Amino acid sequence: MNAISTPVNPLELAANTGCGYPDPYRSQCLPREKRALGDAAGLTAIGVHHTTLYPGAMSSMRHWHTREDELIFVLAGELVLVSDAGEATIGAGQFAGFPAGRSDGHQFVNRGSVPAVYLEISNRDEQDVAHYPDVDLRLDSPAAPGRYAHKDGRPY
Amino acid sequence: MNAISTPVNPLELAANTGCGYPDPYRSQCLPREKRALGDAAGLTAIGVHHTTLYPGAMSSMRHWHTREDELIFVLAGELVLVSDAGEATIGAGQFAGFPAGRSDGHQFVNRGSVPAVYLEISNRDEQDVAHYPDVDLRLDSPAAPGRYAHKDGRPY
Repeated sequence: MNAISTPVNPLELAANTGCGYPDPYRSQCLPREKRALGDAAGLTAIGVHHTTLYPGAMSSMRHWHTREDELIFVLAGELVLVSDAGEATIGAGQFAGFPAGRSDGHQFVNRGSVPAVYLEISNRDEQDVAHYPDVDLRLDSPAAPGRYAHKDGRPY
Repeated sequence: MNAISTPVNPLELAANTGCGYPDPYRSQCLPREKRALGDAAGLTAIGVHHTTLYPGAMSSMRHWHTREDELIFVLAGELVLVSDAGEATIGAGQFAGFPAGRSDGHQFVNRGSVPAVYLEISNRDEQDVAHYPDVDLRLDSPAAPGRYAHKDGRPY
């Protein structure tokens, strides 16, 4: 599907139904469907994903990025944002943003009974590192760029 | 309104109801409301705008960017995308993307009878230049960065 300059319904794109985390974190983020809108349009400087998070799943472990801004915009359903400030509900039509470099881990959990659908938007920065305050996980390991590792760099 | 890590409804943000173009282009883009979601969240590497384009208005003159990717996602109503390929309709739930550096000017026109609401997403690049194939307009003028000028650099 080549969406360059062609209007496309995201649901026409193939979904990534996996999760790149190692166990035991992987299963906490599923079931989930991610569709890469930016990639489909040939974009390289920004990433835009259309994500469907099913009841009980979380978007990610709580994390923050060193060099990538993030913004999510909820299209349907409802998410619970978990951050250092506690919990807050984000409903359809609402957004929240997370500046690069601010060390407040965030994640979104679907505690509702219907799928939550949202856009995840960020710039892309090859030097970006993600930190996970609650779990023994880091992205990227200097030894294996693009891969998850233990905080001390050992691969999973 | 500080939306950092706080879920916010875009309509709670103050709207920019103007248009930065010089006449006679300005009036063709109005009435329009733009709300800067990324700015509200303290983001600097990406721009995310929530735009309401009223019937008869166009998003911009047809243009393309040298260093900024663009993606729009329609939330409500319907837009007509005008590009070198001709015209195509983008309805609610659809998106289209425009890679930086591809010299195919695009614009969105609301030819419907209800407001069109959409998200405009891009990276931010201080070296970006926008080219307008159909009109005597350029952004930026090397003589006046951040300002619109005639193609030969003369200010409006």
